[in-house]
Amino acid sequence: MSNSFGATFRATTFGESHGGGLGVIVDGCPAGHPFPFARIAAQLARRRPGQSKLTSPRQEADELKVLSGLEPGTDLTLGTPIAMLFANSDARSHHYDDLAELYRPSHADYTYDARYGLRAVAGGGRSSARETVGRVAAGALAEDLLATLHGVEIVAWVAEVAGVIAPLPDLTTLDRALVDASPVRCPDPAAAEAMIAAIDGARREGDTVGGVIRCIARKVPAGWGAPVFDKLTAALAQAMMSLPASRGFEIGDGFASTRLRGSQHNDPFAVHPDTGQIFTTTNHSGGIQGGISNGETIRFAVAFKPTATLFRPQHTVTRDLQPVIFQPKGRHDPCVLPRAVPMVEAMAALVLCDHMLRARLARVADLVP
Amino acid sequence: MSNSFGATFRATTFGESHGGGLGVIVDGCPAGHPFPFARIAAQLARRRPGQSKLTSPRQEADELKVLSGLEPGTDLTLGTPIAMLFANSDARSHHYDDLAELYRPSHADYTYDARYGLRAVAGGGRSSARETVGRVAAGALAEDLLATLHGVEIVAWVAEVAGVIAPLPDLTTLDRALVDASPVRCPDPAAAEAMIAAIDGARREGDTVGGVIRCIARKVPAGWGAPVFDKLTAALAQAMMSLPASRGFEIGDGFASTRLRGSQHNDPFAVHPDTGQIFTTTNHSGGIQGGISNGETIRFAVAFKPTATLFRPQHTVTRDLQPVIFQPKGRHDPCVLPRAVPMVEAMAALVLCDHMLRARLARVADLVP
Amino acid sequence: MSNSFGATFRATTFGESHGGGLGVIVDGCPAGHPFPFARIAAQLARRRPGQSKLTSPRQEADELKVLSGLEPGTDLTLGTPIAMLFANSDARSHHYDDLAELYRPSHADYTYDARYGLRAVAGGGRSSARETVGRVAAGALAEDLLATLHGVEIVAWVAEVAGVIAPLPDLTTLDRALVDASPVRCPDPAAAEAMIAAIDGARREGDTVGGVIRCIARKVPAGWGAPVFDKLTAALAQAMMSLPASRGFEIGDGFASTRLRGSQHNDPFAVHPDTGQIFTTTNHSGGIQGGISNGETIRFAVAFKPTATLFRPQHTVTRDLQPVIFQPKGRHDPCVLPRAVPMVEAMAALVLCDHMLRARLARVADLVP
Amino acid sequence: MSNSFGATFRATTFGESHGGGLGVIVDGCPAGHPFPFARIAAQLARRRPGQSKLTSPRQEADELKVLSGLEPGTDLTLGTPIAMLFANSDARSHHYDDLAELYRPSHADYTYDARYGLRAVAGGGRSSARETVGRVAAGALAEDLLATLHGVEIVAWVAEVAGVIAPLPDLTTLDRALVDASPVRCPDPAAAEAMIAAIDGARREGDTVGGVIRCIARKVPAGWGAPVFDKLTAALAQAMMSLPASRGFEIGDGFASTRLRGSQHNDPFAVHPDTGQIFTTTNHSGGIQGGISNGETIRFAVAFKPTATLFRPQHTVTRDLQPVIFQPKGRHDPCVLPRAVPMVEAMAALVLCDHMLRARLARVADLVP
Repeated sequence: MSNSFGATFRATTFGESHGGGLGVIVDGCPAGHPFPFARIAAQLARRRPGQSKLTSPRQEADELKVLSGLEPGTDLTLGTPIAMLFANSDARSHHYDDLAELYRPSHADYTYDARYGLRAVAGGGRSSARETVGRVAAGALAEDLLATLHGVEIVAWVAEVAGVIAPLPDLTTLDRALVDASPVRCPDPAAAEAMIAAIDGARREGDTVGGVIRCIARKVPAGWGAPVFDKLTAALAQAMMSLPASRGFEIGDGFASTRLRGSQHNDPFAVHPDTGQIFTTTNHSGGIQGGISNGETIRFAVAFKPTATLFRPQHTVTRDLQPVIFQPKGRHDPCVLPRAVPMVEAMAALVLCDHMLRARLARVADLVP
Repeated sequence: MSNSFGATFRATTFGESHGGGLGVIVDGCPAGHPFPFARIAAQLARRRPGQSKLTSPRQEADELKVLSGLEPGTDLTLGTPIAMLFANSDARSHHYDDLAELYRPSHADYTYDARYGLRAVAGGGRSSARETVGRVAAGALAEDLLATLHGVEIVAWVAEVAGVIAPLPDLTTLDRALVDASPVRCPDPAAAEAMIAAIDGARREGDTVGGVIRCIARKVPAGWGAPVFDKLTAALAQAMMSLPASRGFEIGDGFASTRLRGSQHNDPFAVHPDTGQIFTTTNHSGGIQGGISNGETIRFAVAFKPTATLFRPQHTVTRDLQPVIFQPKGRHDPCVLPRAVPMVEAMAALVLCDHMLRARLARVADLVP
Repeated sequence: MSNSFGATFRATTFGESHGGGLGVIVDGCPAGHPFPFARIAAQLARRRPGQSKLTSPRQEADELKVLSGLEPGTDLTLGTPIAMLFANSDARSHHYDDLAELYRPSHADYTYDARYGLRAVAGGGRSSARETVGRVAAGALAEDLLATLHGVEIVAWVAEVAGVIAPLPDLTTLDRALVDASPVRCPDPAAAEAMIAAIDGARREGDTVGGVIRCIARKVPAGWGAPVFDKLTAALAQAMMSLPASRGFEIGDGFASTRLRGSQHNDPFAVHPDTGQIFTTTNHSGGIQGGISNGETIRFAVAFKPTATLFRPQHTVTRDLQPVIFQPKGRHDPCVLPRAVPMVEAMAALVLCDHMLRARLARVADLVP
Repeated sequence: MSNSFGATFRATTFGESHGGGLGVIVDGCPAGHPFPFARIAAQLARRRPGQSKLTSPRQEADELKVLSGLEPGTDLTLGTPIAMLFANSDARSHHYDDLAELYRPSHADYTYDARYGLRAVAGGGRSSARETVGRVAAGALAEDLLATLHGVEIVAWVAEVAGVIAPLPDLTTLDRALVDASPVRCPDPAAAEAMIAAIDGARREGDTVGGVIRCIARKVPAGWGAPVFDKLTAALAQAMMSLPASRGFEIGDGFASTRLRGSQHNDPFAVHPDTGQIFTTTNHSGGIQGGISNGETIRFAVAFKPTATLFRPQHTVTRDLQPVIFQPKGRHDPCVLPRAVPMVEAMAALVLCDHMLRARLARVADLVP
């Protein structure tokens, strides 16, 4: 169903941006794991609006309430569904009253009406990026399992904004502290400055900008993923393209790989002199071959369009098909990318955790009691 | 499960490139539809190796045998599973004996071994592009339903090979005849010539090239798709990234959209003076907003890497971790793109047919008997 | 996943009997339906403990809070997930402290520990019948769709308790008012009296009793269900056997049919002189043939064991394998059947609503726009 | 989807009784398992028609052809889908021509037409018990995994036919050789004789009989199953009620448990003096408590109605609503139970294998690499 993700570790989100609240149910979390309140809080803080002048001044407390699935006293996971709830506190829905009757360009207003015949007007309802609060919480739980069991490290960063391209950081040492050193979440100080300037410039003009987030996952063992429709690449692509405002996905060298020859793109195998393990001497593939991880760092990119909400008059139509000029008001991000960094990490963690579990069932030899 | 695709119209493929045969089971095809043998045969012919000097000289008859799901005599669909079978005829598996003990770079040999502990060596087994024969057959069935019920038209073409970029064709008139006018399946004659030259050049050097396929779907009604994880964009991305050798996906303006400002990228709504219907005066979004179709032409692109099989010596290792030089022999495509065109169309059709059905359940008003 | 039910109309429940709360997410509810607060409240009231001396004196308010999925102001369904939440108010978890270290006979204590290595002790955690509060709410929503769209009427009743067998009521006129005329929910007054006496007798002796609930669904059209694994019989069986304390399921004549000859059991078809519709002159099949409804009244039965919690000393063991005598305290039902009536109705409604939707996709002719 | 069963070990069947063939795809079989040709052949032989005078004289070779999923040479499972195909050889479909226009009572003719608007007439098409050939093959594979990894032993037998009730055999020693000692598959010689007489008697009168199959699964470890909707009881019930002609299911004491008091029905826990393991001193629960196995022998029963095809004239109607007398011809079983024994075992194995795999993901402690 449309609101669930994952085959064995499954997150189901619910909730509109305004109303009774939002949340996520995680079904399939193995039992006996200490619930990672701190990791979840840290990622929620990175997703939260109002962090800096680059993001919406909306204040959303995003206070997590866990309703179920934890053992009282120990907060160990019980193996039963973990329900995580977020109240909607700062809901000034009267701001949206005038939006009920027109379709904001490049929002989901028209398409929701086309599909359902009605929609929750305030704040975009279910199409709001606020829906991702549950994803980030579930993703941080998934990430904690990945880190605990395999030492997996997931780090995303803003690699490009409005055409400002940051140089590739050292992928072996990059961490979230380096990413968060700048409010734009680009680890290269010079590029970060230029990005901030670009975002500020657009905002002053009532406009918005887009960009590219890159993400790596280190220490994913070889053998996660699957042939055919559930290739790890396919699962990551679905996950990323399910994020609001995402417009493109690429693995490894991605679109650039199309301009290489096979002899340039192929990743030769070798045996590491220290570990005796197979590795590839290059990683054009981005850590996935035939849909299955090969033990190298997984590396992908996600394109985000410029925010559709901008403070300039735009042509559109009303529900009763009258042309109007739309002049938005309210509180919005001129650039979603800094806040999208933990969303990308969360979706990557959901994919990898699901496939970590599925990999345990791949061989009879691993199933001997 | 890994080998099934779709929630309501579900294709399950099976089979290795060599062995008893391959095929696909389609579960959920509505009853009473004339089985489209001709459409399926046409798309299979476009996928088949040996079509031109640009593709592998392997001869695969790809003769379709339908085992179930059709009414005898009428060939109307019964509503029960449709099993489509393809025999493996030209199986010279001894060609592959020497591949059993080494890992071809950027193939799935190593990752399958890492996951399963063993693999079907001949022809890459399940990781072979031969697996897509079932997808193309199922996709052509899906396409026939889409065409019959809604007049949907899906057309893919080769837009770029080895850096040769074709100008954008007229998307309102493009059809498969125009695409197939050149064996490289690029509708622009000049670009097609240059692409063919690039492919030939690479082949003469024992090398391979990649490129980009673009695809459109015309006449998809507004309202197909879903919020959150099953966004139409997410489903298309999963579908495309599940194809062999695919490395990237983008919807609408995709990665290029990240360099536009919101005021440039937003698609204004207007009312068509002739039809009285809502439409957008631009289509940067590629026909999907908030994960749901908006009635405009759906437009996306898929990046394919250069074929991993090339006829030059390469460094790799054996299963028992000895370094070797690998010099491939056999029959392979120097460029997968011409044959990938019907694969992209098939996966697009599977996504759209699934969502066509799901859209019928979206409103209570549509469920009144 | 374990906590979800349904393919197109999907209910996912969460929550332990004590703790932050319980609830259900309904994904796939069509848009534009007035949310049936009254129907849900009525069924919740019938499920609630403390209704009569026959049921547990626990007081659970079971106040429904809908967090999402409804249009503000109109309470029309939005097509997005409907999250229904129930707080845990009367949670005296200290009553259960002494249960942490022993395994109550024929409860889920031991099996949860065997599976998960830990469990929520208070009130049985996830294995508590309190979990069904979400099912009843979701089921009442499903029932409202069935009633609105097709006039489907679902009525369950207590047909047998402790060997007291009620005569079969008139299935054409039976309704919930007749069922609720007695607190034991048996529509036959004399049998109801005898059942109440049997329950009281068992309770006075610190013991418990079981029985059989029968259920009908009237006005289900012919053609709902599916061949093979999702037969309507199979779906109903899964649904009913997922209820706490259920031990058996039968459709139509069920186990008794095994003692009939085919010539006695077969249901002849005829054409109704008034309506011109096909019907069967008998209904041994219980309204389902080949897994698909035939338009007759669907009729099935569910066996419930005697409540496992009884107020007599019992032999058991502790977690550290010491034999002990267990003497329960607390508040429990001596017979679950009166409260299980709305649970059976809810699960029947979830099955039928899912198949009502799926039936809309069965024929191409029904999909013409 | 309707034709698939299982969440992690998934069988998808296809095929009509007459036509190109039938079969099953198994997705999710772990890699490296020797494919159990002999076990599968043995169970297929027990399902085959024409075994004795008790069953249909139809001759179906049921020769298994495995198309995919096995390593050439070793026949080890590859982890990829295993496609098993059975040709339809003895297809005298002209026998069925006169059935195209009428609805056989208590068959699926009418309901398939009601759902799909058409149907495969010959042999009942998809509703034929011939569909189970794929289930039996997939189930025998599942059983082989269960036996290899955990020593699980599944044995079903005919416990009742036409009111002839066999005494309960010794469940600790019962095996298939004892069951197969009589062609009726009842291990009690006296009851078997009486059953055979009852079947013969019915057949001589052109009539048919039904009965009850019981099944046990020994050595299932504690901890398989799941709370709520995927309870092991619920999964077994769905599995059994998906078999043709099944009408009821009960676990443990089943319907009889409803007449016991809790103090009689509860199963006390104790510690085994030899093994130091927890066990229950009685097994009224049938090995499942709270939906999860408790380590005792799993024990359940399935009711099968008398075969609907009988050789007596019956009232029915034609597709164009004319009353007719139907007088069947052809080859049919007067009693399905002997052949249903391996079907019950197969479905039990599919349920248990799926839950064996799922149990591996239940605890974090079991996931440490």
